[in-house]
Amino acid sequence: MSKTFEKLQPYLDKAMALQTARSLFEWDIQTAAPFGAADNTSKVNGILSDEYMKSLINDDVRQLLKQLQTDEEQAELTDKEKAIVKELAKTYEQLESIPPEEFREFNELTSVASRKWSKAKKDNCFADFAPYLKKIIDFKKKFASYRVKGDKTPYEVLLSDFDECFMVKDLDAFFDKFKAEIIPLLKEVYKKVDTIDKSFNYLKYDIDKQKEFCKYISGYLGFDFNRGVIAESEHPFTLQLHNHDVRITDKYMENNLESAIFSIIHETGHALYEMNIDDSITQTLVGTGASMGMHESQSRFYENLLGRSYEFWEPLYDKLVSTFPDNLKNISLDQFVKAINKSTPGLIRTEADELSYCVHVIIRYEIEKMIFNDEVTVENLPKVWNQKYQDYLGVAPTTDSEGVLQDIHWSWGEFGYFPSYAVGTAIASQIYAFMKEKMPISDYLKQGNLTPIREFLRDNIHKYGATKTTNELLKGVCGEEFNPDFYINYLKEKYTKLYNL
Amino acid sequence: MSKTFEKLQPYLDKAMALQTARSLFEWDIQTAAPFGAADNTSKVNGILSDEYMKSLINDDVRQLLKQLQTDEEQAELTDKEKAIVKELAKTYEQLESIPPEEFREFNELTSVASRKWSKAKKDNCFADFAPYLKKIIDFKKKFASYRVKGDKTPYEVLLSDFDECFMVKDLDAFFDKFKAEIIPLLKEVYKKVDTIDKSFNYLKYDIDKQKEFCKYISGYLGFDFNRGVIAESEHPFTLQLHNHDVRITDKYMENNLESAIFSIIHETGHALYEMNIDDSITQTLVGTGASMGMHESQSRFYENLLGRSYEFWEPLYDKLVSTFPDNLKNISLDQFVKAINKSTPGLIRTEADELSYCVHVIIRYEIEKMIFNDEVTVENLPKVWNQKYQDYLGVAPTTDSEGVLQDIHWSWGEFGYFPSYAVGTAIASQIYAFMKEKMPISDYLKQGNLTPIREFLRDNIHKYGATKTTNELLKGVCGEEFNPDFYINYLKEKYTKLYNL
Repeated sequence: MSKTFEKLQPYLDKAMALQTARSLFEWDIQTAAPFGAADNTSKVNGILSDEYMKSLINDDVRQLLKQLQTDEEQAELTDKEKAIVKELAKTYEQLESIPPEEFREFNELTSVASRKWSKAKKDNCFADFAPYLKKIIDFKKKFASYRVKGDKTPYEVLLSDFDECFMVKDLDAFFDKFKAEIIPLLKEVYKKVDTIDKSFNYLKYDIDKQKEFCKYISGYLGFDFNRGVIAESEHPFTLQLHNHDVRITDKYMENNLESAIFSIIHETGHALYEMNIDDSITQTLVGTGASMGMHESQSRFYENLLGRSYEFWEPLYDKLVSTFPDNLKNISLDQFVKAINKSTPGLIRTEADELSYCVHVIIRYEIEKMIFNDEVTVENLPKVWNQKYQDYLGVAPTTDSEGVLQDIHWSWGEFGYFPSYAVGTAIASQIYAFMKEKMPISDYLKQGNLTPIREFLRDNIHKYGATKTTNELLKGVCGEEFNPDFYINYLKEKYTKLYNL
Repeated sequence: MSKTFEKLQPYLDKAMALQTARSLFEWDIQTAAPFGAADNTSKVNGILSDEYMKSLINDDVRQLLKQLQTDEEQAELTDKEKAIVKELAKTYEQLESIPPEEFREFNELTSVASRKWSKAKKDNCFADFAPYLKKIIDFKKKFASYRVKGDKTPYEVLLSDFDECFMVKDLDAFFDKFKAEIIPLLKEVYKKVDTIDKSFNYLKYDIDKQKEFCKYISGYLGFDFNRGVIAESEHPFTLQLHNHDVRITDKYMENNLESAIFSIIHETGHALYEMNIDDSITQTLVGTGASMGMHESQSRFYENLLGRSYEFWEPLYDKLVSTFPDNLKNISLDQFVKAINKSTPGLIRTEADELSYCVHVIIRYEIEKMIFNDEVTVENLPKVWNQKYQDYLGVAPTTDSEGVLQDIHWSWGEFGYFPSYAVGTAIASQIYAFMKEKMPISDYLKQGNLTPIREFLRDNIHKYGATKTTNELLKGVCGEEFNPDFYINYLKEKYTKLYNL
């Protein structure tokens, strides 16, 4: 280890410990903590956050970082150390130019705002949330302005927080093509929406049996219960303390079979990524997924590319039928697979099917661009939102709750995050296309042998953590950087066939 | 707030946040964390422990503490602040004289030792654990020697860590009297052990139904589910993050009805203490129970004084019978209450009945005194242990696992802790005796009205947290300091009657 890096290590360790504690609190709040604990516990979290910041952003670390970025020092660093230094530099770029008081004020604001959002959504009243959203946007614009460099726009500064590889130019190219090719297809599909019967999905399914089946599926995909746990929460999510402690949650509904199953497949995809991070980099700044988009690609790969395929269910469907014989005994595997791929026009992103999902993301991306280009006022957001849903999906929200108020992200100040969902979904198809050339995926699925697939992803993506960027990883796996054509072609082929278009 | 105290506050807040995080990890490890997480997570815990220490033990805090202890500054402090300063001074007394390297070495040792203990217990081999125990004892002797002041013995230094009110003189007086009065009674009782039939307790009891009943009982006693949760763990325990987040666990066994029920009553007693700590002192150094003994008094009060009485079960027994009708329909309330009070000679402290429990503690206390007076070698501990069991209880362990290896405490270096169990149990009787003079406890229990009892304990004990000592609290409630006569008389009266002696 380089002498200078050695001096940095205790600061990194302290930051790691504090960050792990914050993660554990997040897990606990979502899965275990009593409701009335919130106020006192948020005081604890505030202090841990401050200490985390101070452990990384301080004069000693700043000095060491500067030193480590010189050519002379770089020459002495291992690849792992270089990646950590780069990641630390990114943290400095994100935080250092923001005055601590403003940052604290912003954190207090978003903590109130997310509660206000929740109430406004319940009361179906955007006007109640608008003043908070306005303040959040003003803060984000100011923070972005501190950081703007070169030809990056303020919105691109925010995009770069989630993935440095995808700027407006890249996203515009992807989304314009998507709109041109998929929206017409979507409208054709919607004309034939009733040709697939999915009513069995909404019968009554015993929750304990759902849990048991979902746990089985997760293990079947490779989730290691010695290094992870499954719990329940209001919204399914994945969270890791390190590569030997990766946790996922699911939500079970008595009148929806598909929901919990595809959530667990999705979260298991995220979990396998984190479990397969190499031991040598876990508990470091690069000991997690490369980007939000790359993470989402893994969850979508398992959920959609594998999980919604006929072959995936061939060895599994009998078990599902025998778990719920009354509801499924007359549903053929073919009918089941059609149903889990059915596309229906809808207003809610998180409930969207594979074909329309990306449109929901595009709408949010276009609106975020408008916000940061000063092309729309907060007051006008519902109007713009509803119009875009009408234009792209042919359905328009009649209330704010199922429109502009549906996602929590903006109340946290997370602008620039949504595109990751679409990028990740597209990457899943790109990786799948290349893997199909290299291995008999369909045969493996039919045999119930997930190991070669999991090991390929581990060896080519997961183990690297964030030591490589999204595009570096893609280049390694696929020989080329991000290319959304695979995704668009996949959707076209799949849905043309499914609906006999 | 005094200007000096104000300067101290950020250090206290930071220590509080780090301590809360450590508590959450402890909870998580016992209830949720995957098995394979241990190594990486213990790295996190090590760093958080170090940071906790550094947040309190440093030059700035030392300086402020010194200042705050002057008469001039004391005059400016509120009672709460004074109590916090006193508690901080105690922490300094405990830790400051110990060289940090020795302290770290000791922590590493106990972390290994508790695993070695666990293995040795499983393998039934004291010799495997003995070398670790020896090192731990050497450390504890050395640490105590750094702290010895006035006429305190080294063992008394260790006792004072758990309760400053009970030194060897007090404990000897209590235990000598107990032995003189109760051991003869115990031997009489054991002659009639078969007069109470308890076989129903070991039938098969559905675990989900046990959980449901235990949750009901906990709520019945006043556990506030908005500010607490119940989970499962290998050994039942109580842990709090603050007074609005108090957590208890239970362990359910299919072939033992009593075990889970009395564990939940016991832990609920601990939990009510923590839930009733005043809002003004929670999340401070004095925002927890006054002492281990006082805490145990509350759990024992609920478990034994209330929970094992006929009146307690009068409004509850029908519910228990209807939960397990097959097993209990022919068991009368009278028979049930006799069974839950049955005394049987046994080797295991945690399974001991009310009458013999204290003898197990006395044996450990006497052995600890011998250790710290250099009157016994580690090699000889099993022999001394077994002889005392033979002398006092008339039974002798045939293996180390059910003898000297049964408790984990020594592997953590916790010498001086055991007496708290006996002191707490005795305090429960003392408080009960005084409360009976002030309110119709039996009537309240018959009516299923726990509120006046809970509020009395809250207003006279719980709310004060650690702002008062055990004896100060007892003086406030009972008009006198610790007096074990109530306990001894209670046992004599109860068991003479139960066994018609």
